Amino acid sequence: MALSDVGLYGLAVMGQNFALNMASHGFSVSVCNRSPDKVDTTVQRAKDEGNLPLVGHKDVKDFVLSIARPRKIILLVMAGKPVDDTIAAIAQHCEEGDIIVDGGNEWYPNSLRRAKELEPKGIHFVGMGISGGEEGARKGPSLMPGGPRAAFDALEPILVKCAAQVDDGACTTYLGEIGSGNYVKMVHNGIEYGDMQLIAEAYDVLKIAGGLTNAELGQVFTEWNSGELESYLIEITAAIFKKKDDLAGANKDDYLVDKILDKTGMKGTGRWVVQEAAERSVAAPTITASLDARYLSGLKEQRVHASKILNGPTEIPSVDKQQLIDDVRQALYASKICSYAQGLNLIREAGVQNGWKIDLGECARIWKGGCIIRAAFLDRIKAAYIKDPSLDSLLIDADFANELNARHFSWRRVVSLAVASGIPTPSFSGSLSYFDMYRRANLPANLTQAQRDFFGGHSYNRTDREGVFHCEWTDAHHSIGNVAERNRGNL
Amino acid sequence: MALSDVGLYGLAVMGQNFALNMASHGFSVSVCNRSPDKVDTTVQRAKDEGNLPLVGHKDVKDFVLSIARPRKIILLVMAGKPVDDTIAAIAQHCEEGDIIVDGGNEWYPNSLRRAKELEPKGIHFVGMGISGGEEGARKGPSLMPGGPRAAFDALEPILVKCAAQVDDGACTTYLGEIGSGNYVKMVHNGIEYGDMQLIAEAYDVLKIAGGLTNAELGQVFTEWNSGELESYLIEITAAIFKKKDDLAGANKDDYLVDKILDKTGMKGTGRWVVQEAAERSVAAPTITASLDARYLSGLKEQRVHASKILNGPTEIPSVDKQQLIDDVRQALYASKICSYAQGLNLIREAGVQNGWKIDLGECARIWKGGCIIRAAFLDRIKAAYIKDPSLDSLLIDADFANELNARHFSWRRVVSLAVASGIPTPSFSGSLSYFDMYRRANLPANLTQAQRDFFGGHSYNRTDREGVFHCEWTDAHHSIGNVAERNRGNL
Repeated sequence: MALSDVGLYGLAVMGQNFALNMASHGFSVSVCNRSPDKVDTTVQRAKDEGNLPLVGHKDVKDFVLSIARPRKIILLVMAGKPVDDTIAAIAQHCEEGDIIVDGGNEWYPNSLRRAKELEPKGIHFVGMGISGGEEGARKGPSLMPGGPRAAFDALEPILVKCAAQVDDGACTTYLGEIGSGNYVKMVHNGIEYGDMQLIAEAYDVLKIAGGLTNAELGQVFTEWNSGELESYLIEITAAIFKKKDDLAGANKDDYLVDKILDKTGMKGTGRWVVQEAAERSVAAPTITASLDARYLSGLKEQRVHASKILNGPTEIPSVDKQQLIDDVRQALYASKICSYAQGLNLIREAGVQNGWKIDLGECARIWKGGCIIRAAFLDRIKAAYIKDPSLDSLLIDADFANELNARHFSWRRVVSLAVASGIPTPSFSGSLSYFDMYRRANLPANLTQAQRDFFGGHSYNRTDREGVFHCEWTDAHHSIGNVAERNRGNL
Repeated sequence: MALSDVGLYGLAVMGQNFALNMASHGFSVSVCNRSPDKVDTTVQRAKDEGNLPLVGHKDVKDFVLSIARPRKIILLVMAGKPVDDTIAAIAQHCEEGDIIVDGGNEWYPNSLRRAKELEPKGIHFVGMGISGGEEGARKGPSLMPGGPRAAFDALEPILVKCAAQVDDGACTTYLGEIGSGNYVKMVHNGIEYGDMQLIAEAYDVLKIAGGLTNAELGQVFTEWNSGELESYLIEITAAIFKKKDDLAGANKDDYLVDKILDKTGMKGTGRWVVQEAAERSVAAPTITASLDARYLSGLKEQRVHASKILNGPTEIPSVDKQQLIDDVRQALYASKICSYAQGLNLIREAGVQNGWKIDLGECARIWKGGCIIRAAFLDRIKAAYIKDPSLDSLLIDADFANELNARHFSWRRVVSLAVASGIPTPSFSGSLSYFDMYRRANLPANLTQAQRDFFGGHSYNRTDREGVFHCEWTDAHHSIGNVAERNRGNL
C-alpha cells in the first residue's frame, strides 16, 4: 500500500474539513481520531465528495506508519491537554525528521514548551493558527504557521494549495519560529473582536441617534461594503439586518436581529490579547474595549436592574441622517485603523522580544482571504509595510495619516453625539483617545511623574537638561535615608 | 538575653522604617539583612531615635533564634526570587508554628505556592501588602494581610499598633486566606493608577480647554481637597502646582511641573490588574486606560514625530471657566466611582474564585490611612457595603447612584469638550462608557451574537423564548455536519 502524503489527527468538523480540503487538492491523506466513528464519517465524506484520496485509521500506530517520511502530521484537537495527550500518543511512533503541526487556537507558550519537549527526538513542531471556521477549513482558510524553517519548507506545497487564494497569492506564509503562528492568530482574533465591537457601536448610534430601521441599516451596510469598509464582517452584517424571523410561531415580518438576546459569549484568545498587550506595554484600547463590552453584555440581569436606577439623557440631539451615516462610516474606518495599528504593534513587540522575524505586511496579506477579518483594507496595510517595513505605527503611514486627518472631525462628531445621547461607544472613543494621545507631543504625564516623585521618590527627567532629578516637594517632607539610595530602590 | 517579639529581614529603607515603626510601639525587634552594613545603619537609627528596642543580627541563624516562639518574621525584600531565597535561608532555622510574613508587592500565585511549600514544615505563611511608601512604613502604613487566620491572630497586636490609625480603627484587617492580601494590594495599586490618570486628564482639560495657569490649578486642587474629592493625591497635586523650579540655574519664577518630562515609569502591579481583570472577565476600563496612557507616554519620540503628521482641531470651543472647573470636578468624581467599582468587583470575583471571603467595605476602610489612595470618599464605599454586603456594583448603591445621576451631564460636557478639542481623556471617557453600558438594559450585543452565529455557528438565545438557537443566515450557507454537533463544539 502506498504511503500517504500527510496525516490529520482530530476529526471534529474542522478536522474533517481540512482533511477533505487537502485530499481535494490531490494530496493523499491519512486520518485518525480518538473516537473511531468520526473516522468512518470522514472516510464516507471523502467517498461522497468524489472518491478523494483519504484513508482512515483507527489505531494511532497504523495511522503514523501509513504516512510517508519525513511525516507531516496535522493535529486539530482541543487546545491544552488534549494536544499534549495526542502528541504523546503520536510521537512515540514518529522518527527523526518527522513534523507535527498543531492547528488549534493554542496559547503560544504551550507551543514553545512542546517544541522543546520534541527536540530530543528530532521531531519538528509547528504551531499553525487556522482561521476561517469550518467553511474556511474546507474551502481555503488563512494558515499562520510558526516553527522551524525547514519544517515549513516541507509543508509549504500543501499549505499553499489548501489556503485561501487571493489576488496576490495563497493566504499563508512563513511567519517565524515556534510560537509566532499562534501569536499572529491570537492577535487576529483580538482584531476580530475589535471589528465586531466597532460595528456594534455603529449600529447602536445609527439606530438610536439616527433612528434607522433594520431595512435602512441593511442598506447602509450594503453600501459600506462597496467602499473603504469592504469586508466579510460588513457583508454579513448587511445580511443579518435583512434576515426576517422565520422561527415557527414568530411574526414573519419581524427582523431576527431584534429577537436575539444581547448577551455575548467569548473564547480565550480575545482575553489573551489584552493580557499580552499589558505584558508588553502595548496600548490596545480598541481591542480591550471590545472585550470589556462582552463582559458587560454578559451581566444582562444586572444591567436591567441598573437601568432602573441610573439615569442618562432623555433627549437625543437632532441630526441630519445622511450626515450621520457618513460620519459613522468615517468614525468606523478611522477606529479600525487604530485597532489594526494596536494589533500589529503588539505582534511586532512580541516578535522582537521572542526573536521572531515577523513581516507585518505579510500578516496583513495572509488575512486577506479565508478569515473573518478579510477586508479590502488589508491591501493598504500591506502596502504601508512594503513602503516602510520598520514603520512605528500604521497611523503615521502617509496614506493612513491622510485618511485619519480627513476623518477626525467626523469621528469627533460621532463620539460627541454618542456621549450626549448616552450611547456607550467604548471602542470608538477609546480609538479616538488613542489617536489623540499618539499625536500629542506633550501629554499631561509630567504631572504623573511629579506625583510619583512626590509620594515615592521615583525621580523624573526634565525637558531642559539631561539627568535624573528628585525634588523635596514640601518643606514638611523630610528625606529619609540617602536620596540616591532611595531612588535606586524605586526606579 | 531576652527573645524579641518579632523579626524583620530586609533592611532597605522600607524595611528599616517598618522595623523602627514596630520598635517605637514597644515591640522588641530583631533585624537582619543580606549585606550586613544595613544592619549597623538600622541599629544606629534605633539608637538615634530614642534607644528603641531593636537588636541587629548579621547571621540568619542567630537572627531566627533571637525571636520568641512562635516566631513572627516579616520579610521586606524584592518580590520574586529574592523572597524565595530568603525564605529558604530562614525556614531552615524555623520550627513548627512559626510565621513568615512577606511584605512585598508580590504576584499572588507566588504566595500560594510558598504557603504550600512551607506547609509540610508547619510554618505559616502570610502575604501582606503594605502601602504608604517609606514614610508610611515608619509612621503607619495600610497593612493588607492574607494567610491562615491563626497566624493573623498572632500578628494582630503588632499590626494593629503599627498600621495607620484612622477614626474607625487601624488600617489593617484580616482579609482572607493566603493570596488575598497580595491581591487587595495589587488592586489598590491599579486604583492608584486610575486616580492618577483621572487627575492628569482633569489637569489637561483645565489647562488646554480652560486656559488655567499653574497658580489657578493649584488653587482649584486646593479647593477640591476640601470637598468630595478630598484625598492625598488631590492634596499633593495642589502642592505640585505651587512648586517653583528651584534647580540651580533655573528661572525661579517658573513652575517645576512645566519642566518635567512627560514620560511615565511604572511597576508590575498595575499591569497585573489589567491581566487579572481579563482573566476573570471583569471590565476595568478606567484602570486599563491609565495603563495605556503610561505606555503611550513612554513613546515620547514617536509622539513628537506623529504630532507633525497627524492633525487635530486647531480651535478650542470657548467655555465658561467656572462652569468648566465645576464640570471637571464632577466628571473626575463620577469617573472615580466607576474606577473603584471596577477594582472592588475584581477583588470580589477573585475572592469567589479563590475561596477568599473578602469584605469589600473593610478593603475600603483599611485604605483610609497610610496609603496613596487614602480619601474621604472611602467612607462612603465602606458605608455602601455595610448597607448591602452583596452589592453588585458601587454604581447602584443608592447614594452613589444619586451622585452619578446628578453628575452625568457635567461628565458628558467634559468628555464632549475634550473630544471636540482634541484632548485625549481615555479614563474619563472609558469610565463614562462603562457607566452608559452598565445602565443599558439592552446593548447592541444582539448583533454581535448574530455575527457569531453567522460565521461560526455559535448559536444564540432569544429574548422571547427559552432555549438555544441557530439560524441558517443565507441560502448560500450550507450546513456542514449536524447543527447540534457543531454547536457543541463551538460553545
